[in-house]
Amino acid sequence: IKTIGVLTSGGDAPGMNAAIRAVVRRGLSRGINMKGILKGYSGLMNEEIIDMTAVDVSDTIQKGGTILYTARCTEMRTPEGQKRAAEVCKKHGIDGLVVIGGDGSFAGAQKLANLGINAVGVPGTIDLDIACTEYTIGFDTAVNTAMEAIDKVRDTSTSHERVSIIEVMGRNAGYLALWCGIANGAEDILLPEKYDFDEQKIINNIIDNRKKGKKHHIIINAEGIGHSEAMAKRIEAATGIETRATILGHMQRGGTPTCKDRVYASIMGAKAVDILLEGKSKRVICYRDGEYIDMDINEALAMKKGISEYQYEVSYSLSHNYSKNNE
Amino acid sequence: IKTIGVLTSGGDAPGMNAAIRAVVRRGLSRGINMKGILKGYSGLMNEEIIDMTAVDVSDTIQKGGTILYTARCTEMRTPEGQKRAAEVCKKHGIDGLVVIGGDGSFAGAQKLANLGINAVGVPGTIDLDIACTEYTIGFDTAVNTAMEAIDKVRDTSTSHERVSIIEVMGRNAGYLALWCGIANGAEDILLPEKYDFDEQKIINNIIDNRKKGKKHHIIINAEGIGHSEAMAKRIEAATGIETRATILGHMQRGGTPTCKDRVYASIMGAKAVDILLEGKSKRVICYRDGEYIDMDINEALAMKKGISEYQYEVSYSLSHNYSKNNE
Amino acid sequence: IKTIGVLTSGGDAPGMNAAIRAVVRRGLSRGINMKGILKGYSGLMNEEIIDMTAVDVSDTIQKGGTILYTARCTEMRTPEGQKRAAEVCKKHGIDGLVVIGGDGSFAGAQKLANLGINAVGVPGTIDLDIACTEYTIGFDTAVNTAMEAIDKVRDTSTSHERVSIIEVMGRNAGYLALWCGIANGAEDILLPEKYDFDEQKIINNIIDNRKKGKKHHIIINAEGIGHSEAMAKRIEAATGIETRATILGHMQRGGTPTCKDRVYASIMGAKAVDILLEGKSKRVICYRDGEYIDMDINEALAMKKGISEYQYEVSYSLSHNYSKNNE
Amino acid sequence: IKTIGVLTSGGDAPGMNAAIRAVVRRGLSRGINMKGILKGYSGLMNEEIIDMTAVDVSDTIQKGGTILYTARCTEMRTPEGQKRAAEVCKKHGIDGLVVIGGDGSFAGAQKLANLGINAVGVPGTIDLDIACTEYTIGFDTAVNTAMEAIDKVRDTSTSHERVSIIEVMGRNAGYLALWCGIANGAEDILLPEKYDFDEQKIINNIIDNRKKGKKHHIIINAEGIGHSEAMAKRIEAATGIETRATILGHMQRGGTPTCKDRVYASIMGAKAVDILLEGKSKRVICYRDGEYIDMDINEALAMKKGISEYQYEVSYSLSHNYSKNNE
Repeated sequence: IKTIGVLTSGGDAPGMNAAIRAVVRRGLSRGINMKGILKGYSGLMNEEIIDMTAVDVSDTIQKGGTILYTARCTEMRTPEGQKRAAEVCKKHGIDGLVVIGGDGSFAGAQKLANLGINAVGVPGTIDLDIACTEYTIGFDTAVNTAMEAIDKVRDTSTSHERVSIIEVMGRNAGYLALWCGIANGAEDILLPEKYDFDEQKIINNIIDNRKKGKKHHIIINAEGIGHSEAMAKRIEAATGIETRATILGHMQRGGTPTCKDRVYASIMGAKAVDILLEGKSKRVICYRDGEYIDMDINEALAMKKGISEYQYEVSYSLSHNYSKNNE
Repeated sequence: IKTIGVLTSGGDAPGMNAAIRAVVRRGLSRGINMKGILKGYSGLMNEEIIDMTAVDVSDTIQKGGTILYTARCTEMRTPEGQKRAAEVCKKHGIDGLVVIGGDGSFAGAQKLANLGINAVGVPGTIDLDIACTEYTIGFDTAVNTAMEAIDKVRDTSTSHERVSIIEVMGRNAGYLALWCGIANGAEDILLPEKYDFDEQKIINNIIDNRKKGKKHHIIINAEGIGHSEAMAKRIEAATGIETRATILGHMQRGGTPTCKDRVYASIMGAKAVDILLEGKSKRVICYRDGEYIDMDINEALAMKKGISEYQYEVSYSLSHNYSKNNE
Repeated sequence: IKTIGVLTSGGDAPGMNAAIRAVVRRGLSRGINMKGILKGYSGLMNEEIIDMTAVDVSDTIQKGGTILYTARCTEMRTPEGQKRAAEVCKKHGIDGLVVIGGDGSFAGAQKLANLGINAVGVPGTIDLDIACTEYTIGFDTAVNTAMEAIDKVRDTSTSHERVSIIEVMGRNAGYLALWCGIANGAEDILLPEKYDFDEQKIINNIIDNRKKGKKHHIIINAEGIGHSEAMAKRIEAATGIETRATILGHMQRGGTPTCKDRVYASIMGAKAVDILLEGKSKRVICYRDGEYIDMDINEALAMKKGISEYQYEVSYSLSHNYSKNNE
Repeated sequence: IKTIGVLTSGGDAPGMNAAIRAVVRRGLSRGINMKGILKGYSGLMNEEIIDMTAVDVSDTIQKGGTILYTARCTEMRTPEGQKRAAEVCKKHGIDGLVVIGGDGSFAGAQKLANLGINAVGVPGTIDLDIACTEYTIGFDTAVNTAMEAIDKVRDTSTSHERVSIIEVMGRNAGYLALWCGIANGAEDILLPEKYDFDEQKIINNIIDNRKKGKKHHIIINAEGIGHSEAMAKRIEAATGIETRATILGHMQRGGTPTCKDRVYASIMGAKAVDILLEGKSKRVICYRDGEYIDMDINEALAMKKGISEYQYEVSYSLSHNYSKNNE
């Protein structure tokens, strides 16, 4: 392998720049020519490809977003698109490719690998919803951003003795919501994997807690359930207690990456280059059982993971025994 | 004066606890009995009054929200309510009162002063919309909270080359929006004091900037203008560029106060006690011309202030000359 | 088991309060009487023992330090001290004990278990130096505190084109230094486990980098190596480049815990109670292979762990190939 | 005026980049050629001068340090050096100069103005020690950085019931120390302007507070007094209470600027350009009495300012009446 390209694809995640920096500098340190592909697969098809030097990634490890930009690309789901992408790689001499993104982005890498481009995926998404790995770049920053925002909402919620519904990201996966729920001591956590739409239970819960003297009631709601504004109105009507919704939105995707995101991104990015240079292709870098490993993309895409029942149950027990000791 | 009461009223603001602490400890240090009144004027009418010792305010200077809780109280706008409030003060021996809040809260203090309770206002609101003072407790924390959130939105907005509308608090006053606009380098700032509802100008602006190569376009919108979601849809339709709205909401009211908020709250709180002990009443603590002073409430409530034209114009010029040098 | 006590011992770590809260509330939710033991084993011997209700741990999950205080206790290393501690437990009806701390604190728990008190350890130390577990409560907060401080030092170091030595905690373990080194893109990382005291190599490194145009040179030094001030003077003398040392010190132990610390502390604290109620004793809660498990204390104390060679080598390669592409 | 140069000089301060950006973009928006002078007066003498476009200052408003670098320059204090500097300006067509720095940097600007170069100073220093202005760029960020670090030290200091001495920057001016003292609720604040070196008073204070049940004792010490380590040893010896010193050091100079620093820097930088274009020279931009104004440099350099006695006294009274209410 003489030339390695790197791209970011799908939703951006804090730490992607640290991963790009690691890929570029690791490649350069091993004598490889490095190319940056702008705007994901979409830029690849349009040949938006630039040379990357060590200086180009200076002072980027601490930056949010992705200096290579990102986009979603429906064309890459078609055989024609995939063929086009492989041709562009070959035209530009890119014989190794590192794709930083989620499951959808890995599917693209898989196709390119089938078409002869050595491709490796690095897991980057704030949703933590890639089954093959215990960690995905961006989750730690996003969950801290959300948690800190919720700490602030809680201050004012308590001062006004309000109910607050805070909607965090996560269309299909409730990891962000569950972690925030535990870390913010939320009274209710609504997860796409588990929510039964029994709003009356929440309402009863609020009324019970208020009787026992609780000054606030925090509900963490995942984006996949959504409708936080309407829920707030219904809860206020049913309980008579002022209820407000906050949708944290895109701020969860940005910001200076945490130490964990910078470190995992650096190691994963470097490892992606290392395994390409070992002659591997169609692999994903994973963090499993306390180690950085690589795994076949097909195998990775076939895996499933779910929310820990134990953690969910613990979370509930830690925020609902307030009264016991007051009695 | 033997006993001073303290209450927080209206919307809460970071630094209110630092002000309460200062009032309580300053009073105690001068040999006064200190009482905390819970839930603003509403709690006053219900006699929710507690003794305050120095320990009760330990470890609160860095806390968001208000340990005395707050509420809005329509009854206090009626002569009967005001009379009731004054009677409760007298019943509990409260011959001095410190009211931490905004203009509406000061109006209540004014009435109580007219009814014989020595009352002093301390300006606490994140909106900076009290005309008599250059500073109100909570603004600095709120504006930094908003700015940091917008920095994060900007990261992801740039990565996706999006337009972002971010709605910050401020129903009638655009200070939060203006400061964020300057500090985040926003391309457009919509202020209640100035916005002309010429959306086409914004749309043209976006299209121009995009042609010149700008990767993002940040619009700060004040709550008083609102309708950010609908605006995003219209702008996306008109420009063809992905546009997203984020409403920061109540997180702007919470959080650990900044150094400025803790310091101003401490000095203002202490000064409120000092002037009560000098025999003054019906005053507001202000920060004017670089000094902490006190002013007559009637005079204070009659004042007006507006947005600086110069600052608004500077803000625009700093974010709109991008192209000049590229040409 | 009817009554469970909880104490924190050794150096404090952010997240200890989240662990205490979890132990207390989990116990209460399962019908157990909960006692807090102040100031570690030292307070145990002095019978500084208080009842803990759910309210006592309200609003503590986000607090740094430990509400139970902590101390080092030499007496607990003697058979007499251990006997005394066990007697106090029995006197107060404490038949289950959760000890939050490091290896030294676990040794005390081991002795108490031998004397008939059911005891479980929860790993809490910013140093990450407990071999049986991949995670210890407090590390994530400490490493982010240090990283953020180093980001700031780097800003000014670059502005003045200085060399900066930053000393982080870690007497025998270099995890904090290694993570900061990777996350801050440090040019040199001095670890107790690896440093060969070849200062001339560092000096040559600095001179080389300066020739290649690098504007700053960051050296992360672990407390176990220390002597940062003297090192700075020697390096300045040898290179002629202004060199400054910063010793981060105790700020690394404090601060609001990160989301990871709050979540791990909550689950580990709850699990400690759960296994006591399963009838287990002389166990440590560990995070291993992606799961929360428990392990025999004897076994745990006998384990060793070291720094990853791969991560150390990656770190170096990512910060030292600057010149290659400039040539 | 056709060409304006901008430089940063002396110690760097957060917000300097926001000021540079404002100078550059304001100048460009008014049709001026803009030049950046690297490394302060030292770079000016060495003709390290670059063209500045709007893009060169993109994405810098939130960056710590100074993208133009800074240095101290003894040569600029000599008539020969000043003459040389003026000649370089003329050679490069620089007929307007904005100098961002402290009093020493303004003295250089004054000399250049005397030699025919229109020069304006913008106050940038974390020390707040420029008498003509109520605000200097960088102070707000530095004081928040210090305050947050001290909050963390306090967590661990309380957990261990220690005395902590924290040394903040400020050689001749105690503003950073005073603000932190108030904001962190410190028991003692040692200011260069006021400290009487009566250590016994501090020791008595500590012993008294401990008797009254205080769990920590925080002493903020300004750099101008220094010797924190030795002081800690003496206090520990005299009180028998564990005492630790932390010297915050250069981290106080770096970091993302706060909103206040970004806003003040933006307005001050723009105003410096505006007054140059009005034909003014030998002026300093100041913030006084709630407004941005400009003042003659000679007059500015002759002014003095001191610490507020009232604020110092308030600070003490808020942290020393702990016991009163316990009795």
